Formats: sequence, structure tokens, C-alpha cells
Amino acid sequence: MPHIELAEGLPGITAGFAFRPETAKPMRELAHVLLHTSGNEGFSSGDRELVAAFVSSRNTCYFCQTSHGAAAAHLHEGGEDVVSAVCSDYKTAPISEKLKALLGIAEQVQIDGKRVTAEHVARAKAEGATDLDIHDTVLIAAAFCMYNRYVDGLATVQPRDPAAYREMGQRMATQGYSSGA
Amino acid sequence: MPHIELAEGLPGITAGFAFRPETAKPMRELAHVLLHTSGNEGFSSGDRELVAAFVSSRNTCYFCQTSHGAAAAHLHEGGEDVVSAVCSDYKTAPISEKLKALLGIAEQVQIDGKRVTAEHVARAKAEGATDLDIHDTVLIAAAFCMYNRYVDGLATVQPRDPAAYREMGQRMATQGYSSGA
Repeated sequence: MPHIELAEGLPGITAGFAFRPETAKPMRELAHVLLHTSGNEGFSSGDRELVAAFVSSRNTCYFCQTSHGAAAAHLHEGGEDVVSAVCSDYKTAPISEKLKALLGIAEQVQIDGKRVTAEHVARAKAEGATDLDIHDTVLIAAAFCMYNRYVDGLATVQPRDPAAYREMGQRMATQGYSSGA
Repeated sequence: MPHIELAEGLPGITAGFAFRPETAKPMRELAHVLLHTSGNEGFSSGDRELVAAFVSSRNTCYFCQTSHGAAAAHLHEGGEDVVSAVCSDYKTAPISEKLKALLGIAEQVQIDGKRVTAEHVARAKAEGATDLDIHDTVLIAAAFCMYNRYVDGLATVQPRDPAAYREMGQRMATQGYSSGA
């Protein structure tokens, strides 16, 4: 049961968003920029959703891990298998060396930003990561340390129906986050 | 030295904001709503800045801890002594029992949202906390887990001059975050 009175029937973060539209607006906008509108050939929306799912899995946030995992699966050729591989051991997952290096940065940020070293960054740059890719990786990882704690800290209702998450992930992947989640 | 090319002379988060205005906008707006415009008698801006400084101290983020500590000191009667007391041991600090209970929730969220129990929430409600106070406490704590990781994950320059932070804190306390930091 949620810790505060949240509207029934809204899963995960959407219940918090409905409770407080003033904070929902910038939180949605941040996700929209980081995950949806900034995707390009070098660091796609699918890759960005993978970073979000990976960080959420490290924070063991069921709702975010599963919904962003579904969004990543919708966008990636490899589908759900790639998402599982990244969350269980990204170093051996069937993804680019560049994305592995970016996930190596996200892995540190999830614990503490100070753990990112010049070596982590040099490795990513050697694989072709730009300053913007590195900036956005750090911020996606940092932002999911917020979203995850928000979802879990309110004890939101997090359904366990895989089909619901697939539908949610498809909607997130195609429409983004600026309205609705 | 920062991990990416950031403008020189901008301290802490302001360098990240200048690098990426598209993400700075919602990040500023979120802080503005949570810390500045939502303050009221029951959960003041000073109290909210104290929660921000406290969480940042637990994340050992020098820039956020010191700047938001300075903002809290500017707003609180007890000044810098209250900030030090809260960051070293909030349970014995000269603050209300309600704020202690809210800090007890923030303390858990900083580690993991799932650590917030019905007992933490019941204690806060018994001391007069509303659902909105609890929601905002969870989100301030969660958001500073983002801001702190962003500031540290980019290896931003964080000056050590106390006078600069006092000035910054005063500006934050009076003007908020919607433009400039």
C-alpha cells in the first residue's frame, strides 16, 4: 500500500505524477529530453533506454527496470534478450563497445558520481563517445537514481503483469514522456 | 579537472547547466518547485533546504552540501549551527520533532526508497506531517541523489571558499532556482 493517498489504478511513477503535477512536469520533461528527443545515430533512444533499465536494475526498482526495459526492447533489434543480457552482465552483452564503455560510467554513477575516473571516460572516448554522450550517460544514471527512489520511496503500486509493461514500454518508446508516462 | 569540456569559472552544477541548457531547464524547475515556491508554515523553504543539505552530506557532495547548507543557514533562525547539527546528528539537532521525522524518511530514501517503512511515515504523520510534506520529502531526497551524482559524476570544479558559498546560498534562498543557480 502506498505511504500516502495516491489515486488507485495508476502504476508506479504515474501515481506520484498525478498526486503532484507541479513536480511531474519537470520530471517528465527531463526524461523526454534525455531518453526520447536526444537520441541519434551515435547514442540512440534504444541505447538510452538500456542505460535507464540497467541503472534501475542496479537500484532494484521493479517498475522502472521493467517499463524502461520494455521500451529498450521495443527499440532494439535484439529485443528482450539484449535487455536481459545488459542487466545481468553488460560486459558480455551483444552491444557495441561504445555502449559498454558508457554503461561502465553509468555503473559507477549509480553508486557514487565520484567513482567515475578519467580512465572510464578515456575508454568511452576511445570508442567514439562524445562529450555530450558522456554528459547524458552521467545524467541518465543520476536521474534514474531519483526516479527509482521516488517510485519505491512512496511505495507505489507496481503491477507484475508482463503484458502491461510491454504495452507501457511501447508507448514510452514511441511517444516519449512529455505527457502521460 | 572535469571529465568533459565545461566552461571555466562556473562552479559545480552551474557548469553542467551551461553545457546542456535543455536538461538544465527541467532540473532547475524541479528544484524551484520543491525548495522555493512550495515552502509554507508547515514545511518551510528553510526546512526543505535543510533536507537537501542533509541528503547531500550523506552523499558527500561538497558543492551541494555547502551551497544548500548556506541557503538553509540564511533562512533558519539558528543559522549555520543548525545546519551543522542536522548534518552531524539530526536526531539531537535543535529542530522540530516533525522535521526530525521527515529527515528520518529522507535518510532512508538516500540509501534506497524501499527502506521507507509504514513506521517512518506514521511517525511523521503523528508529528503533523501531511501527505504533501511526505511526498516532497521523498522527492527532495530522491532529487538530491540525482543532483549530487550529476555534480560529482562530471567531476565539476567545486571551489573551497566559504564566502562564495555564503553568497551563493543567500542568492538561492532569496531568488530560487528558476534562472541562475
